[in-house]
Amino acid sequence: MDRRNHYAAEGAKPLHCIVKLGGSAITCKNELETINEDNLRVVSLQLRHGIISGPSHGMDWSRRPGSTEIETLVDDFDDELESDCKRLIVVHGAGSFGHFQASKSGVHKGGLSKPLVKSGFVATRISVTTLNLEIVRALAKDGIPSIGMSPFSCGWSTCERNIAAADTSTVVEALDAGFVPVLHGDAVLDSSLGCTILSGDVIIHHLAEHLRPVYVVFLTDVSGVYDRPPTEPDAVLLREIAVHEDGSWSVLQPKLQDASRQVEITVAAHDTTGGMVTKITEAAMIAKLGIDVYIVKAATEHSAMALRGQLPKNIPNDWVGTVIRLAN
Amino acid sequence: MDRRNHYAAEGAKPLHCIVKLGGSAITCKNELETINEDNLRVVSLQLRHGIISGPSHGMDWSRRPGSTEIETLVDDFDDELESDCKRLIVVHGAGSFGHFQASKSGVHKGGLSKPLVKSGFVATRISVTTLNLEIVRALAKDGIPSIGMSPFSCGWSTCERNIAAADTSTVVEALDAGFVPVLHGDAVLDSSLGCTILSGDVIIHHLAEHLRPVYVVFLTDVSGVYDRPPTEPDAVLLREIAVHEDGSWSVLQPKLQDASRQVEITVAAHDTTGGMVTKITEAAMIAKLGIDVYIVKAATEHSAMALRGQLPKNIPNDWVGTVIRLAN
Repeated sequence: MDRRNHYAAEGAKPLHCIVKLGGSAITCKNELETINEDNLRVVSLQLRHGIISGPSHGMDWSRRPGSTEIETLVDDFDDELESDCKRLIVVHGAGSFGHFQASKSGVHKGGLSKPLVKSGFVATRISVTTLNLEIVRALAKDGIPSIGMSPFSCGWSTCERNIAAADTSTVVEALDAGFVPVLHGDAVLDSSLGCTILSGDVIIHHLAEHLRPVYVVFLTDVSGVYDRPPTEPDAVLLREIAVHEDGSWSVLQPKLQDASRQVEITVAAHDTTGGMVTKITEAAMIAKLGIDVYIVKAATEHSAMALRGQLPKNIPNDWVGTVIRLAN
Repeated sequence: MDRRNHYAAEGAKPLHCIVKLGGSAITCKNELETINEDNLRVVSLQLRHGIISGPSHGMDWSRRPGSTEIETLVDDFDDELESDCKRLIVVHGAGSFGHFQASKSGVHKGGLSKPLVKSGFVATRISVTTLNLEIVRALAKDGIPSIGMSPFSCGWSTCERNIAAADTSTVVEALDAGFVPVLHGDAVLDSSLGCTILSGDVIIHHLAEHLRPVYVVFLTDVSGVYDRPPTEPDAVLLREIAVHEDGSWSVLQPKLQDASRQVEITVAAHDTTGGMVTKITEAAMIAKLGIDVYIVKAATEHSAMALRGQLPKNIPNDWVGTVIRLAN
């Protein structure tokens, strides 16, 4: 399953980055199954500018509602003008898609023999794949060669909620062919529980471990990781977190007055995949691999900077976000 | 890849049937990206009655347009009442989804390095996965535990348009877990051409070969296979076709006056996957495996009879459709 040798052997371009589109950043958290169209549009343009140099064309040729014609700009294509596209994988969360169905039926707890769980599994997959399709469509409209790939369909499964089978070869083949795979948190089969939810954050950790991107960006609805819930008035944004070999982490910037203070974490009641606990744990595990992780608010100048790949060289003082990396 | 041993070893239930939802039967052929809602609704109910005994529940808990609530009937679930679901795989064609995008860009001819082909590949996948999602949703509404599985995501690929890699283990795992996998004709990578279109009919042949269903049903927009294009006034429905060991076939019923007459075939100009040529060839190859194939008009009493599994025992004289099976 480890594809590092694949790159070494065939001299393929290395993976540039993995971007997580947080469910809270691209959907309206408090409105059921509603996409945050404004954010998604900006995120899509920022991704396009971050990875493609040269011309690109709209790749969603769907019929628009109310129209009888399919939208296509086929005549604009010039096969002489090739664009260059950095290798990118997008993984998105569920936000207001899927969580309701999953938590109402208890899909994350397993038990597929129960009619409610089985129905909830189907309902969850319908909801998350609906979101996946809309994200693929939004990226394609902006000229990103996006290809939806559901972990369930890729044959990914878990055992007691830990990844048991998750062959990355199909993802690598899509990358090799010049596409941008778009994966998502999904309902999957679990050899012990029957089924569970595989979160986008766990997927990213797995992909990072096997495909070794230069860096990973988490786009969220807040500016980064805070020392307590960011809705509290005194919450302090943690600008730099160092992860140690033993998996523990410490805050390098800002210098916290109370050094013993733990980073407080919030888990939204509807978040069946663990909220910030999962996110920080997975981010720390990625950083431990020597891969820089940036957590930044979506659709801002700061996310644009992260997606343009400017941060690995130098993090400007006015950049707002959290960097998590391996301690020196 | 051959999973017959899987069943033998573990005593799993054999696959009951594979059903092809023809693109022309479930979409409006002449209206771009438009589903034939009436047909799909009837097909879905017929499938439900054909495979499920006992109670079943709506499994699409999506928010309806205009509503702020998610539709769910969670309180109705009774975990004591288990239903029994026969093992079924659904494969659908593209109809008015995908064909336009594929033929406009030449995805079936390959050449992913060309911007037009690459864009067309993305556009084709968006279109066919949109249809897939709507079919999964329609089946789930009627209580069929449907799970969308795109061949591309399953890692299926071709070499010079022939299937090169198409591991069925993910499909079998979904069946084992009690789900109904819903696959579709898809744009896939081709190791020789770069990319091509893998048709639903080729997928069915592959699945039939490896998973050995009791029978296969093709639901179409005409009553079966005719001796010439069915729009011609003298077209005769071929009721029974026998396939011989060498792959040739002969018409057993009705007795054709001109025995040397070839079955005429029509290939619609927009059908990038081959129309009736592909269908009859693949159906004959399935029949050669000893698996009965029924080609029947969707959403009729005749399709209901085929889906209820009544035909393998006895084909009534008033059943309208085409049976293709191995010659005695």
